[in-house]
Amino acid sequence: MYAPRMASILFTRGAPSLDIIDQEGLRDAAQKAFTDDPGGTFAYGTSVGYVPLRSWLAEQHGVEPEQVLVTNGSMQADAFLFELLVQAGDDVVVEAPTYDRTLLNLRQRGANIHAIELETDGINVDALEKLLESGVRPKLAHIIPNFHNPAGYTLSEAKRARLLELSAEYDFVLFEDDPYVKVRFEGEPLPTMLSQDKNEKVVYASSFSKTMAPGIRCGYLVGPKAVIKKVQDIATTTYISPNMVAQSIVNSYCRSGRLDESVVNVRTALRARRDALVAALERELPEAVFTAPQGGYFMWVELPGVSIEKLVPVAKEHGVEFVKGSDFLLEGGDNEMRLAFSGVTPDQIDEGITRLAAAVRSLS
Amino acid sequence: MYAPRMASILFTRGAPSLDIIDQEGLRDAAQKAFTDDPGGTFAYGTSVGYVPLRSWLAEQHGVEPEQVLVTNGSMQADAFLFELLVQAGDDVVVEAPTYDRTLLNLRQRGANIHAIELETDGINVDALEKLLESGVRPKLAHIIPNFHNPAGYTLSEAKRARLLELSAEYDFVLFEDDPYVKVRFEGEPLPTMLSQDKNEKVVYASSFSKTMAPGIRCGYLVGPKAVIKKVQDIATTTYISPNMVAQSIVNSYCRSGRLDESVVNVRTALRARRDALVAALERELPEAVFTAPQGGYFMWVELPGVSIEKLVPVAKEHGVEFVKGSDFLLEGGDNEMRLAFSGVTPDQIDEGITRLAAAVRSLS
Repeated sequence: MYAPRMASILFTRGAPSLDIIDQEGLRDAAQKAFTDDPGGTFAYGTSVGYVPLRSWLAEQHGVEPEQVLVTNGSMQADAFLFELLVQAGDDVVVEAPTYDRTLLNLRQRGANIHAIELETDGINVDALEKLLESGVRPKLAHIIPNFHNPAGYTLSEAKRARLLELSAEYDFVLFEDDPYVKVRFEGEPLPTMLSQDKNEKVVYASSFSKTMAPGIRCGYLVGPKAVIKKVQDIATTTYISPNMVAQSIVNSYCRSGRLDESVVNVRTALRARRDALVAALERELPEAVFTAPQGGYFMWVELPGVSIEKLVPVAKEHGVEFVKGSDFLLEGGDNEMRLAFSGVTPDQIDEGITRLAAAVRSLS
Repeated sequence: MYAPRMASILFTRGAPSLDIIDQEGLRDAAQKAFTDDPGGTFAYGTSVGYVPLRSWLAEQHGVEPEQVLVTNGSMQADAFLFELLVQAGDDVVVEAPTYDRTLLNLRQRGANIHAIELETDGINVDALEKLLESGVRPKLAHIIPNFHNPAGYTLSEAKRARLLELSAEYDFVLFEDDPYVKVRFEGEPLPTMLSQDKNEKVVYASSFSKTMAPGIRCGYLVGPKAVIKKVQDIATTTYISPNMVAQSIVNSYCRSGRLDESVVNVRTALRARRDALVAALERELPEAVFTAPQGGYFMWVELPGVSIEKLVPVAKEHGVEFVKGSDFLLEGGDNEMRLAFSGVTPDQIDEGITRLAAAVRSLS
């Protein structure tokens, strides 16, 4: 038995550790932002966000600024979009598993949630098509295309194309929720569905939480002008304007070129963490089933025959914590868990998986 | 006729002009915040806000930290509280006139709004009592106690006491919305209703928008622990955490002692603006009826016999803009307007009222 006073190793939270945040760059960006544009930084802004950042994002995505709205984190962007599109009783599609807060938010809105199996190359589009053919008409389908939370999987190019077709054919919003896109550490990036959307069906969301710092709370939506305009009205009523000080710092940081540098650092660190996790699992828990992600923060691990419900408290006693798979599902997930490797160093990962294996062995 | 190219003088927006924002102090605060607590500043926080700022606010109000929740601006705080307390069909009480965005937000929630006349010493408590005696049971009464927006009036001590009694007797939340409290330029401050609340009926909101900078989007709620806990749950679902970067800057600024200095500067500047407005109105529009405010940003002006609806476009042609009174009311306000003096210098005020008088004369 491990000593109870030992600090737990946390695979729980999808947050970067402080060592991969460019603190000096952010300090410089704040100085520059406050000096170069005090008017835009300190005054009330508008509900579309800090205008120069909106323009920068529009350029990045090759769209018009009127298609972009910058928010206090992408969670707030999601909440606005759901407020606009999803009323009680409305059908919506999510992936199974999916981000637990999305599930919670949609549940609280009283949505009729259809969870479609997530495969290692993304949502099962055949199952989705069958659902649509059965007569269900969702308001939206929520899709996390890259380095899925919680699964770590990436949506294939073919499935992206199929989803675009289905959304046009059955007239639903394809909500492309893409906060991890830049945290790819191997393989070629795939084009966003947004960039291939010919039917104004995609609303895209992303964030600076994974590439700059979560505490900056800066996310954004990109979509058809008419949708963005309606979201803007909700944003105005909610908070007049999002945080101008934070968005002005983000803008200054992005335009300084340091974002690219920061992304490289984040990728390098996370690749090493992923590698450490894969190596430790193969060594300590050879029965574990998983697909190593090509990017992002998370890995979905199945331990056949192990009750994760029972494992959680035992693992905690052994000094290691994670989130049980069932939190990301409407049903099932009894043998699955999410391991977040973003906030732990390779050494901690190695030790953490050793502890996890000891906990698993102690169950039998 | 004035030349059409002349820049308009804007009495429209309740925002401070840039010259009364302590830009240097905020730059220093950002450096200090980012250096002293990078972990708390850059990581995800919790939905209660940046913890050291929450503690500082609790000390200021003489309450426990668990009674405080810091948000992205006080509008967001209002929205959370309304989401918690007000469902479609619920009765609520507001002042007439009241802040237009409060009215809009409550309307959008489908509230049954009872607007009670605002007198120069605050809401007509006799009229409120009569409403309550008639059997109406509001979920909350929204009260702006100091330097009211849009009226500039301040709630008397006696009426504060009466409101506390009524809220206890008829069991409704007294929502004390107090963003202007520190911008008092004459007279003695009155105790908040929060500080005199013995029945856990008051929820208090304020903000740093009027004393530090609106772009920092930092507001807060203080109230009974059980209410704050429920608001916290809504905040978690909405955005995980508010802006840590901004709140860490606010914390650093408050604790540096520069907030007090900044407040003195704001007061001095706004007193001069109020004085310029009173002098110009007495000189140019002696028929105007108003009560000069002892603080804040706004003055409510009645022009007997003048249609404000008709005046707005004519005034704009003359190069001066303001908000018509009817925007702050469910009905009436045809001869009334709100003049915000926070964003204009004394010289601009003098010129603006001269233009306004010319516009009024041109109507008859």
